[in-house]
Amino acid sequence: MALELKGIIPPMVTPLNADGGLDEKGLEKLIEHLITGGIHGIFLLGTNGEAPSLSYALRKELITKACKYIRGRVPVLVGITDTSFNGSLDIAAHSKDAGADAVVVAPPYYLPISQEEMIDYLERLIPQLSLPVMMYNMPSCTKLHLSLETVKRAKELGAIGIKDSSGDMSYFYSLIEAFKETPEFSIIVGTELFLPETIIYGGHGAVAGGANFLPELFVDLYNASVANNLEDIKILRNKVAFVNSSIYCVGKNASRITKGIKCALSVMDICEDHMALPLRKFENREREKVKEYLDQFAGSQVA
Amino acid sequence: MALELKGIIPPMVTPLNADGGLDEKGLEKLIEHLITGGIHGIFLLGTNGEAPSLSYALRKELITKACKYIRGRVPVLVGITDTSFNGSLDIAAHSKDAGADAVVVAPPYYLPISQEEMIDYLERLIPQLSLPVMMYNMPSCTKLHLSLETVKRAKELGAIGIKDSSGDMSYFYSLIEAFKETPEFSIIVGTELFLPETIIYGGHGAVAGGANFLPELFVDLYNASVANNLEDIKILRNKVAFVNSSIYCVGKNASRITKGIKCALSVMDICEDHMALPLRKFENREREKVKEYLDQFAGSQVA
Amino acid sequence: MALELKGIIPPMVTPLNADGGLDEKGLEKLIEHLITGGIHGIFLLGTNGEAPSLSYALRKELITKACKYIRGRVPVLVGITDTSFNGSLDIAAHSKDAGADAVVVAPPYYLPISQEEMIDYLERLIPQLSLPVMMYNMPSCTKLHLSLETVKRAKELGAIGIKDSSGDMSYFYSLIEAFKETPEFSIIVGTELFLPETIIYGGHGAVAGGANFLPELFVDLYNASVANNLEDIKILRNKVAFVNSSIYCVGKNASRITKGIKCALSVMDICEDHMALPLRKFENREREKVKEYLDQFAGSQVA
Amino acid sequence: MALELKGIIPPMVTPLNADGGLDEKGLEKLIEHLITGGIHGIFLLGTNGEAPSLSYALRKELITKACKYIRGRVPVLVGITDTSFNGSLDIAAHSKDAGADAVVVAPPYYLPISQEEMIDYLERLIPQLSLPVMMYNMPSCTKLHLSLETVKRAKELGAIGIKDSSGDMSYFYSLIEAFKETPEFSIIVGTELFLPETIIYGGHGAVAGGANFLPELFVDLYNASVANNLEDIKILRNKVAFVNSSIYCVGKNASRITKGIKCALSVMDICEDHMALPLRKFENREREKVKEYLDQFAGSQVA
Repeated sequence: MALELKGIIPPMVTPLNADGGLDEKGLEKLIEHLITGGIHGIFLLGTNGEAPSLSYALRKELITKACKYIRGRVPVLVGITDTSFNGSLDIAAHSKDAGADAVVVAPPYYLPISQEEMIDYLERLIPQLSLPVMMYNMPSCTKLHLSLETVKRAKELGAIGIKDSSGDMSYFYSLIEAFKETPEFSIIVGTELFLPETIIYGGHGAVAGGANFLPELFVDLYNASVANNLEDIKILRNKVAFVNSSIYCVGKNASRITKGIKCALSVMDICEDHMALPLRKFENREREKVKEYLDQFAGSQVA
Repeated sequence: MALELKGIIPPMVTPLNADGGLDEKGLEKLIEHLITGGIHGIFLLGTNGEAPSLSYALRKELITKACKYIRGRVPVLVGITDTSFNGSLDIAAHSKDAGADAVVVAPPYYLPISQEEMIDYLERLIPQLSLPVMMYNMPSCTKLHLSLETVKRAKELGAIGIKDSSGDMSYFYSLIEAFKETPEFSIIVGTELFLPETIIYGGHGAVAGGANFLPELFVDLYNASVANNLEDIKILRNKVAFVNSSIYCVGKNASRITKGIKCALSVMDICEDHMALPLRKFENREREKVKEYLDQFAGSQVA
Repeated sequence: MALELKGIIPPMVTPLNADGGLDEKGLEKLIEHLITGGIHGIFLLGTNGEAPSLSYALRKELITKACKYIRGRVPVLVGITDTSFNGSLDIAAHSKDAGADAVVVAPPYYLPISQEEMIDYLERLIPQLSLPVMMYNMPSCTKLHLSLETVKRAKELGAIGIKDSSGDMSYFYSLIEAFKETPEFSIIVGTELFLPETIIYGGHGAVAGGANFLPELFVDLYNASVANNLEDIKILRNKVAFVNSSIYCVGKNASRITKGIKCALSVMDICEDHMALPLRKFENREREKVKEYLDQFAGSQVA
Repeated sequence: MALELKGIIPPMVTPLNADGGLDEKGLEKLIEHLITGGIHGIFLLGTNGEAPSLSYALRKELITKACKYIRGRVPVLVGITDTSFNGSLDIAAHSKDAGADAVVVAPPYYLPISQEEMIDYLERLIPQLSLPVMMYNMPSCTKLHLSLETVKRAKELGAIGIKDSSGDMSYFYSLIEAFKETPEFSIIVGTELFLPETIIYGGHGAVAGGANFLPELFVDLYNASVANNLEDIKILRNKVAFVNSSIYCVGKNASRITKGIKCALSVMDICEDHMALPLRKFENREREKVKEYLDQFAGSQVA
């Protein structure tokens, strides 16, 4: 049966120990936390997963162990984006062997390339992949904003969907418009607050970083959106907005969101919040702030 | 004796076979071509070297063999920039073992990081490196334009110079100004046409891609600049301008320069011009154009 | 009674004759078309109104005559943005005299200025204005993306709302979040497709270019959004999406949207579609395309 | 006899009184200061002249009075760039009447336009101008980086030169390369530190903001460059570098350079340093810093 990408697919953070190794116990707890929370799939080794910062050995260990702990309960997607073509193929082959369900492909991210060069790259890459492919638009990291034409060509080559993390809602809506005749091609949004409109207007789900620590919130918001239940949407979306304007605003730099997510998980005693360089985990001052916001959030839950 | 970075240091292309492996014979010929041409150092695994597109194994093989062929005749600099911190350390250690003289460091290039994060990264990285460090500013690829403050901090941490490939001449002049009291800190330009003014106003050299196939031209231009010989400078610089407006304008996309350089080397029968994905070597039509320009260049030499 | 900005406020195009003068008859017809269509206000001399391309005399003539034809039936907002401070004051004074209800202020747009300089500018400007002020965020034209802080300061100085045409939905949502405790401060969106979510999540209306020729469509979509009627929203939004992906995609360059709107109005025999330089009206080929799309749109209305 | 643009052409600041009117006495003193300093032309109403911030009346008054004071001793160039086509024509006609020698044209700067739209605009504008035209590339203000093709078309339409203030030296060198067969087409640089290489490699002069207060320094540097006198070039260029890294670094924001120039002129008692909004003159603290740097500069002159 064909893999269908939809719902809440957290871009899972990679739990790490102080020595840079995999926090295996944390990984297992995190996966249970996500699945218990009702999420519809798990995306390993995306941007929040700090994939490019990890060694191949660590990436492979993560894939193997995550697949083992997930036990087929939800689809597993693995980011194989790399500047080395063979590196991508190698992670893809390992993903297949480990039992993953799909691979995720963004442009190689060192050399600035054109849409034509990206299409050429995909024409080389996709035929060599044995797992279904989801495209990944992440221009703030890769420097290439995938054009509609490039996405269409990826679909012709076999891609089953796209996750867009550009934050460019006009572009995202143009994706929905462009593929509305083929609803089996999944349009997944990477910006949490855009989840309801994504679903209401024909998209399929969200790769929501916040679902790492608040999986139920996002699953509920997804379900309310599928049900067109505006009343619930407004209440749940307000909670997401709170997280966005509190926890995601602790610290500075673009990396603060990934740091905030990992810190929240650590505060919740789910996994460690060590990070791979060039990132560094929050200091105590930021951690206290995250803790305070999590408490506020929990309080509002009761209300 | 302390390593002094100056003169013409070609960012050597990585000769590759059709199967993606190292073109070992081409490598040897290329190295002889460079050294015979009088260059003052060789920079392996930079942007023109397609480093991020190569597997670690291939990078290490290149380092080992290049050092072997170079035989200490000129200093060898090795790019260790990587998104994985351990990847950088590993290439650095291998470079040391292989006999290289320095390593070259640009920011990790997937996550957008701030100057503060880059400084923090350098504070972690540089103390673990046993070879001298040259900084590498390449914002079009890394997304981070190294600030003066970051470069100053790198120098405090032990960096012995910087290569600037931003193309931003005002910035480059501010580098020269900022470090004029410490002329042992090398200021190297990455834009070929800026070589004379770099030298005249206090800089130290050029990492000139064109020196891959025309090492003598750049060495002559460097020497004329050191000698403040404006007459020769104008003649030689005109030749560089010709290369810039001919061979570097064949094809399209930013990658055309690296492609043109490799193609010229192939036309000159020095090495193969296969490239690592996502790049692809020039087709016949472009190759013919490069050949034509090379002939014109040779003709003008005679004149 | 305080002016309340909400609903559909078309950024009215400026009907021009072939000689560059005001198409007065077209102006009158256009205004009737808009008011009959149920719009809630009219915004003169915005970007779609080509304000900066018009002489002061023409701007003043437009203000006077538009106010005369509108006859107080809906609020009139006038763009006073100018690179000359006195130019802004002059247009503002004229607007007051002509009976307009509010003025609209974007940053002076030649010199790149900082947020601090913009705040300083507003502290000078707003106290000298006798009409209510709406802020206007239009970074693609002005080069300054108004920060939350700048907007907050504008509110303190008396601004009654903001129109955001950045297309940056995350920013827009942060505006709604920042001002949710003061719902009398109007948050107006400039991107047509974002209208429903704007209203549902707490915004107040849209400055929709397409409302120039399809006022009822946008008024209906606004009403459906206020009523939280998702079924109607989806149907009406589909029509807007059609316009976006058809008429707004005729021709090229950013200016094609304004050109498409004026052309549609001309095809509908409402006003001329001459434009002020540097823009030029569509040629016949583009006009035929616009006509075809308008026919398709009309057909779908029947369905 | 045809007008030849070359040498040092200061982009003259516009001396203003506290009430925003023209500082007529300052204007006269400034002009004498410039001409006594040996400059080769005066450019009124450029970016340093704050042209877009001034009313038409003030711009015309400036043109008339400047031409009167200059008395034909050097060519007068007048910036006519405006968002209103008729505004540009009007200032151009006034310039002709007042006795100016050329007009300067940059793209209209509100609407983002394409190269094609700019060419179309020039095809309309230039034939209606009775004075020679110099093109002006100023992308940081106008958002359009004039392509080589656009400049070539401008030349075909009659433009006699271009001033490039992009700061992009590779682009600037490509201009020199593109027009080397027609040396009567003037290539003028807008970045002070690039003056020697501009002249040495075939350019014609500099529109140097610093020549407002230090005309002799720039004239001397120009003459040394024409004479290929590298020794003098180095000494004089060092002084320019000092100004760049001292006076131009007082204050913050891009506007600090224009503010610094005006402030220096005020400290030197040549004219007032009031500015047109959105800019504001330096406060005392910054003024003291400028004074200190001017003293240092004067001291080094003696040395």
